[in-house]
Amino acid sequence: MLLRYWGKILQRGGRNAVGQEAAGSTSQGRHVNDGPVGPVSLRKSNMKKAAIYVPNLVTSETLKQVCAQHRSSHLKYETLVVTTEDNITTIRMNRPQKKNAVSSTMTDELIAALEEAATDDSVLTVLTGTSDYFTSGSDLTNALERKEQSRANINPFRIFVKKFIDFPKPLIAVVNGPAIGIGVTILGLFDVVYATERATFLTPFTKLAIYPEGCSSYTFPKIMGPGMAAEMLLFNKKLTAHEACNARLVTEVFPDDRFQSEVWTRLKAYAKLPKNCIAASKQLIRDVEREKLHDVCDKECELIDKRTNSKESSDAIKNFFKNKAKL
Amino acid sequence: MLLRYWGKILQRGGRNAVGQEAAGSTSQGRHVNDGPVGPVSLRKSNMKKAAIYVPNLVTSETLKQVCAQHRSSHLKYETLVVTTEDNITTIRMNRPQKKNAVSSTMTDELIAALEEAATDDSVLTVLTGTSDYFTSGSDLTNALERKEQSRANINPFRIFVKKFIDFPKPLIAVVNGPAIGIGVTILGLFDVVYATERATFLTPFTKLAIYPEGCSSYTFPKIMGPGMAAEMLLFNKKLTAHEACNARLVTEVFPDDRFQSEVWTRLKAYAKLPKNCIAASKQLIRDVEREKLHDVCDKECELIDKRTNSKESSDAIKNFFKNKAKL
Amino acid sequence: MLLRYWGKILQRGGRNAVGQEAAGSTSQGRHVNDGPVGPVSLRKSNMKKAAIYVPNLVTSETLKQVCAQHRSSHLKYETLVVTTEDNITTIRMNRPQKKNAVSSTMTDELIAALEEAATDDSVLTVLTGTSDYFTSGSDLTNALERKEQSRANINPFRIFVKKFIDFPKPLIAVVNGPAIGIGVTILGLFDVVYATERATFLTPFTKLAIYPEGCSSYTFPKIMGPGMAAEMLLFNKKLTAHEACNARLVTEVFPDDRFQSEVWTRLKAYAKLPKNCIAASKQLIRDVEREKLHDVCDKECELIDKRTNSKESSDAIKNFFKNKAKL
Repeated sequence: MLLRYWGKILQRGGRNAVGQEAAGSTSQGRHVNDGPVGPVSLRKSNMKKAAIYVPNLVTSETLKQVCAQHRSSHLKYETLVVTTEDNITTIRMNRPQKKNAVSSTMTDELIAALEEAATDDSVLTVLTGTSDYFTSGSDLTNALERKEQSRANINPFRIFVKKFIDFPKPLIAVVNGPAIGIGVTILGLFDVVYATERATFLTPFTKLAIYPEGCSSYTFPKIMGPGMAAEMLLFNKKLTAHEACNARLVTEVFPDDRFQSEVWTRLKAYAKLPKNCIAASKQLIRDVEREKLHDVCDKECELIDKRTNSKESSDAIKNFFKNKAKL
Repeated sequence: MLLRYWGKILQRGGRNAVGQEAAGSTSQGRHVNDGPVGPVSLRKSNMKKAAIYVPNLVTSETLKQVCAQHRSSHLKYETLVVTTEDNITTIRMNRPQKKNAVSSTMTDELIAALEEAATDDSVLTVLTGTSDYFTSGSDLTNALERKEQSRANINPFRIFVKKFIDFPKPLIAVVNGPAIGIGVTILGLFDVVYATERATFLTPFTKLAIYPEGCSSYTFPKIMGPGMAAEMLLFNKKLTAHEACNARLVTEVFPDDRFQSEVWTRLKAYAKLPKNCIAASKQLIRDVEREKLHDVCDKECELIDKRTNSKESSDAIKNFFKNKAKL
Repeated sequence: MLLRYWGKILQRGGRNAVGQEAAGSTSQGRHVNDGPVGPVSLRKSNMKKAAIYVPNLVTSETLKQVCAQHRSSHLKYETLVVTTEDNITTIRMNRPQKKNAVSSTMTDELIAALEEAATDDSVLTVLTGTSDYFTSGSDLTNALERKEQSRANINPFRIFVKKFIDFPKPLIAVVNGPAIGIGVTILGLFDVVYATERATFLTPFTKLAIYPEGCSSYTFPKIMGPGMAAEMLLFNKKLTAHEACNARLVTEVFPDDRFQSEVWTRLKAYAKLPKNCIAASKQLIRDVEREKLHDVCDKECELIDKRTNSKESSDAIKNFFKNKAKL
C-alpha cells in the first residue's frame, strides 16, 4: 500500500508523467486538487475512467513532451534505474539498502516509468530488482504515518495497480530474489514470470492485519486454485520458487548461477518478434478480463481504505516492529 | 441431493436456526409455509436474496437467542458432533455405521451448524467425518422415495449449498478418508482442503444418471481444468488423494499416521490470526464470484429438479442397488 | 483461419448442412446472400444468434433430410473420414500428404460433420487425424490468397469455432501426433484431450504476425495459467505432450505403442453411459461460460479480420515460405 499524500505528487507539477496526467485530467473538467496541499478527491468512477483512457492521455501532445523529457531523464529517478536496449525496456527497483522496499516515491516513479514504457519503441517491458531482493514489498515505515491519512491516500496505489492492468505490451517479471507483499501480488498481472531458484514468495497480510491487493483476491485463486491462494493470502504461507512455479504464479524457475544469462538470452529473442502483433495479442488476452480486474482493484482499495486504520491493524504492525527490534 | 420435505424442517419451528431463518423471512413479507405440512414455495429470486442477506438475518436479536440455545445444544444433533475449541469450530459428520452418508436429517443439521458457526466467536470452521470415511455422499435410500417428490424438494439442498457459498469465515475440510458425491463436489467451495493419503474422491453421477451439484459444474473445470473435471463429472473417474492434489481440488496431502496431528497443529496456529481481518479477506476473495456461484447453484438445482425423476435415472439407481445386493 | 469465399459454400446449396443452415437462416428473414457469387454479409449479432440457435435449426424437418443424406454420404467427404461405431462418432482429418492441414474445404466439412454428429445417436464424438500428425493447422497456401479477401471471409471460420462451443455432447480429442495452430487452440473447447507421448503442441502466431483464435485468448490463460499461455500465444513456445499435460491442455498422455488400444478401450466404456444424462451434464458445464466463449470468438475474429492483411503479417508469411524453400 502506498500511504503518502497524493497531493505531494501533484505539487511536483510537470516534473513527471504522473503529475502531468493529473494536470491533463483537470483540463478535462475534473476537480483534481482541492488546494495547494490538499489530497486529491477523485471519485471512483473518474478513477476508473482515468485508468482506462490513459492511452488517449499519453498520446496527447503535452504528455509527449513530458515523456520526451523523461527519456533523457532516466537517471533522474530516485528509486529506479530504467534502460532501453535490444527492444526491451527494463525497470529496475533500486533501493538495495532497503531490499527494494516500495516507498511512496517508488510507487510514483513506477507509475511514471510504466507510462513511459507503454509508449516507447520497445517490444517488451521487464520489471526486476537490484542486488539480492526482488522487493521486500511496501515500506512499512509509511504505514506508521497512517494516522494522518485520509480517504484520498489509497488513490496513488490504485493508479499504480491499474497501470499494470492496462499495460499494453508483454510485461515480464525477472524475479532475482525474494519477493514480499505487493511484489508478489502484482505478479498475477504479468504475462510471464521468471524466477531464480533462490526467490521466495510471501504475502504476510493477515499477520499484519492488512488486506490483499494488486488484484490478488481474484488472480491468485484463478491462477493457483483456491487452496493455495488461501494458504498465501489468508494464512501467510511462504512459497519457494519451485512451489510458486507448481502453483503457476511463476512461469519458469532457473538455477541461480545461470538465471540472468538464460533469461536475457531468451528475452532478446522474444523482443525480435513483430511489435504490433505481439501487443495486439497481449491486449486481446487482457481484454477478456480487463473490466473484472478494474472492479476487483476498486473493491480491494475500498476495503484497504476502510479497514487499514483499525486497531487490529495498528496493533499488528506495532508488534511487527517491536519483534523486529528484538532480533 | 436432499430429498425430503422441507416442510419437516419448518415444523420443528424455533428448534433450530433453519426454522428461525424461515420465520424471519416470513416477517419480511414472504409466504414461506402454505400450511402445516405443505412444502415451501420459495421462488428462485427470493431464494437467492435469502442466501445473500443471511448476514443481516443472523445478527438479528431473535436469531441470536436461537443460536445461544444451539451453543448449549451441540450434543442434541442426531447426525453431527459440533465442538468449539482454540478458536476453531469443528463440525463432524457422525453416522459411521453409514459411512457418514448425508441423509436429509444431516443436511438440515449441517445447515443449522453452519449458521451457528458463522456467528460464533471462532476464527476457523472445519468440516470432517467420524471414523474411516469423510462421507459416502447422499444417502441413496432417500433417492428411492423420489416418487412422492414435488418441486419444493430441491430447496433444502439448494439452501445447504448456498450456506457454503456465503459462509463468512475460512472453511477448512479435513478429509479423513474416502469422499463420494456431494462430499466431493462441495469441496470446491472450501478455502482449504487437507486430505489423508488414504482419501479418495469419486462423483459417480452419470453412472446413476444423476447430475453435478454443489457448484461443481463451475468450480471443477475452474480448479482442475476442463479435462479432469470431465473425467470426474461425466465419466465417474475416482481420484487418489495425490491425484486430487495434483488437480488442486486438495490443497495438501498428509501421511495417514501423521494426518490428524499435523493438520490440527497447523490449524491451531492459523486460528490465532486476527479474526476480523481474516474473515474480511476471505469475503473479499469470495465476493469476486459470489453471484456466479449462486447462479450456478440455481441452474444445477433446476436441472436436478427437472431430470431426477427420469426413467434413465430410476433405472440406473435400481440397478445400483441390485448390483450392491449381489455383492 | 479459413480464407475462401463463404459464397462458395452457399453455391453448393442443399449439398450439405452448412449450406442448409444458411438457407434456413434466410427463411428467418435475414439477408444472407447478396447475389449469386457475393460473400455473405452476416452481421455480428445475427452470427451469434445463428450459432446459439443451431439446435433449433438442426432439428427442423428440412435439415433432418439433409442430415439423413449425410449419414449415407460419409465416404463422400473429400478431407474427412467419419464413422459411427459402439455409440462413438469419430471424425478423422484425412489429408495425410498435407499433415492433415486444415484447408477451407476441410473447415466446411468439419462444420458439416460436427452438425451431423450433434444429432446422431452416438454418445461421444471424437476428433482425430490420419497417420503421423493430428493436424499441421491452417493450410497457409490459403493465406497467400488473402489479397482478394473481404470482410466476409472470416465467417466460415467463426461458424467452425462456434460449432465447438455449442457442441451438445462430450467431445474427445484423440491427438495422435503433432498439433499446430488451430489444431491446438481448439483443444481448449474439448471436454477431454488424450495424447500420445509423441504429440507436440505449437501455436506459432506472432512469428507469422497472425493472431490467437479458437477462443485460446480466453481458454489458454484459464486452463494453463497466464504464464504458459503467454509463452505459447505470444512467444511461440512448443510444448511436449507431458508439458501440455502439466499445463492441463492435455488430460492424459499415453505411450505411443499403447495409445490407440488404451484410449479406445476407455472410450468404448464411456460410451455405454446414459446418453441423455451425459449430454445434459456436459451442457450444464458449458452453459456457465457459453456466452463468454461466443464473445471471445467474435472479438478474436474481429482482430483477425482487421489485422491479417497488415504488411507485418504478409511479410512474416512470405518469410516463412522463403525459409521453408531453403530447407
